[in-house]
Amino acid sequence: MRVNFQEIEQAAQRLRGFAHKTPVQMSRTINRKTGCEVYFKCENFQRTGSFKFRGAFNALAALSEEAREKGVLTYSSGNHAQALASAGQILGIPVTVIMPSDAPLVKIEATRGYGAEVIAYDRSEHTREALAKNLQEETGRTLIPPFDHPHVIAGQGTATRELIEEVRLLDVLIVCTGGGGLLSGSALAAKTMNPQCRVVGIEPAAGDDVTRSFQTGTIQSVHNPNTIADGARTHAPSALTFGLIQAYVDDMRVVSDEALARTMFFMWERLKLVVEPTGALATAGLFHAEVVRPGQRIGVIISGGNVALQDIPHLWKVAGYALSGA
Amino acid sequence: MRVNFQEIEQAAQRLRGFAHKTPVQMSRTINRKTGCEVYFKCENFQRTGSFKFRGAFNALAALSEEAREKGVLTYSSGNHAQALASAGQILGIPVTVIMPSDAPLVKIEATRGYGAEVIAYDRSEHTREALAKNLQEETGRTLIPPFDHPHVIAGQGTATRELIEEVRLLDVLIVCTGGGGLLSGSALAAKTMNPQCRVVGIEPAAGDDVTRSFQTGTIQSVHNPNTIADGARTHAPSALTFGLIQAYVDDMRVVSDEALARTMFFMWERLKLVVEPTGALATAGLFHAEVVRPGQRIGVIISGGNVALQDIPHLWKVAGYALSGA
Repeated sequence: MRVNFQEIEQAAQRLRGFAHKTPVQMSRTINRKTGCEVYFKCENFQRTGSFKFRGAFNALAALSEEAREKGVLTYSSGNHAQALASAGQILGIPVTVIMPSDAPLVKIEATRGYGAEVIAYDRSEHTREALAKNLQEETGRTLIPPFDHPHVIAGQGTATRELIEEVRLLDVLIVCTGGGGLLSGSALAAKTMNPQCRVVGIEPAAGDDVTRSFQTGTIQSVHNPNTIADGARTHAPSALTFGLIQAYVDDMRVVSDEALARTMFFMWERLKLVVEPTGALATAGLFHAEVVRPGQRIGVIISGGNVALQDIPHLWKVAGYALSGA
Repeated sequence: MRVNFQEIEQAAQRLRGFAHKTPVQMSRTINRKTGCEVYFKCENFQRTGSFKFRGAFNALAALSEEAREKGVLTYSSGNHAQALASAGQILGIPVTVIMPSDAPLVKIEATRGYGAEVIAYDRSEHTREALAKNLQEETGRTLIPPFDHPHVIAGQGTATRELIEEVRLLDVLIVCTGGGGLLSGSALAAKTMNPQCRVVGIEPAAGDDVTRSFQTGTIQSVHNPNTIADGARTHAPSALTFGLIQAYVDDMRVVSDEALARTMFFMWERLKLVVEPTGALATAGLFHAEVVRPGQRIGVIISGGNVALQDIPHLWKVAGYALSGA
């Protein structure tokens, strides 16, 4: 099973009129700071607040009539859950989401708000994969996992396709990575449209499974990585995403959580954009991972903006800043 | 001394290539919540983070060669100071800013960062108006006040001119107000381009000088209003701005600081836009002041996004929310 650029083109067709063509923003401050021309693709303005809507909608829109009627299921407590729920609501496809019973209530409510059914499970007694498998067999529902799926990957690739259609040549594209769905789709799009463009993936240092897999040539994993980048807490890339990463990504780098938190707040204060920690990974790579040279044209994917403001005191502390009293 | 629409057109010419044509954003969530089509003009993405750049740049670009050489001065510790400093830097005009010695260091540094000279004064010993007058006489510098100036007002009006050029007919335009520079310029532009458009000004309840002036027909003032909307802590409108407000504004409303803080955080979380408290006034009016009817096309000016993240715990408390511990 492989993914090719035609599938990204098909995904773009399916998404037309449903996904937002998100804005590309620039910042004089950041251009001055880096000496580059930096183009930010703002997927924090995408429906449901992250790029995940693209892959989820594409996967559902590609289902057969029979599969649509039976419905779909996934396991996720993050942006993929909300994206799949929203896409299902738009297309009239029943969605079930398996979430740990200790997931934040706000995420459960948001997913239910899009009309999905949420099944809670006890992390200490079950694994989500086994539960999903049982449910699939019982109900005939199709599993749409967060990244290990060709239509999900192709959908995620449409963000970079839009970016390059708008700004044309890029010297470097910087993309965050968790399980590799966004990175592999983005790299495929970039290398097809701009073969000379270097593609760099960025991970949090605590969750460096893709970086180590990339360096060693075999899939490596991490166990429950402790990072503020909740979208990058995945255990390992899949065979599908890793194959594409090996084929199309030029380099992988990590950034510390402190650099990540500082970059996130810098983006809030200077770009006036609310980005979530995972959404600031690529920009943190731009600032700290030495992957660009002055004079280059750089594309940066801002993957999402779903951050709970209640978490600010913690994130502020991770950045190493002192909080003034209320 | 009056301002007319031709001066807004001239300002738009002068600003071309210097001010950003800021994006207009929409939100499904807010359209559903209000039953309206709401167009947000995002001046938080303007240079220096607020609409103030428009008026400051227009006033400087209109100066004679002689006046440019002698330089300009202003008194402000807010967005106008940074805007004037930045415009002066671009045009090569020396800028002096008189600031109270207890102004936040970050604002002094930002203004100096644009190359302006900052003169600190002791609030208990001097008034800024008297200091400015002395300095004007000594140095021959031209005073560019934050709102009481025809070119400043005309410059501020260009934001609404751009908004209506882009979205065409509006039923209601909602604008925040402090001294009335943005409101008067916006109202003049809206009533000239869309004579049937209702223009509504929004103030914080604690700083309701323009609202009471509007209701009574004579200029009323407040003394050091206690509100989180620091851009609306002005004492009173000027004769110039009030004359335009009486001529072109249809209604004035106030919102509580609690409603304002909640609206600001709602915009961060749902629109993914960092807006400052004053920048959320118009949206708070949209939600709470009962100035729109379902089915209408609404323009809302987001005036700026310059908020210090250190202030979040205080703003969170004003919103009535509990902070989870770090």
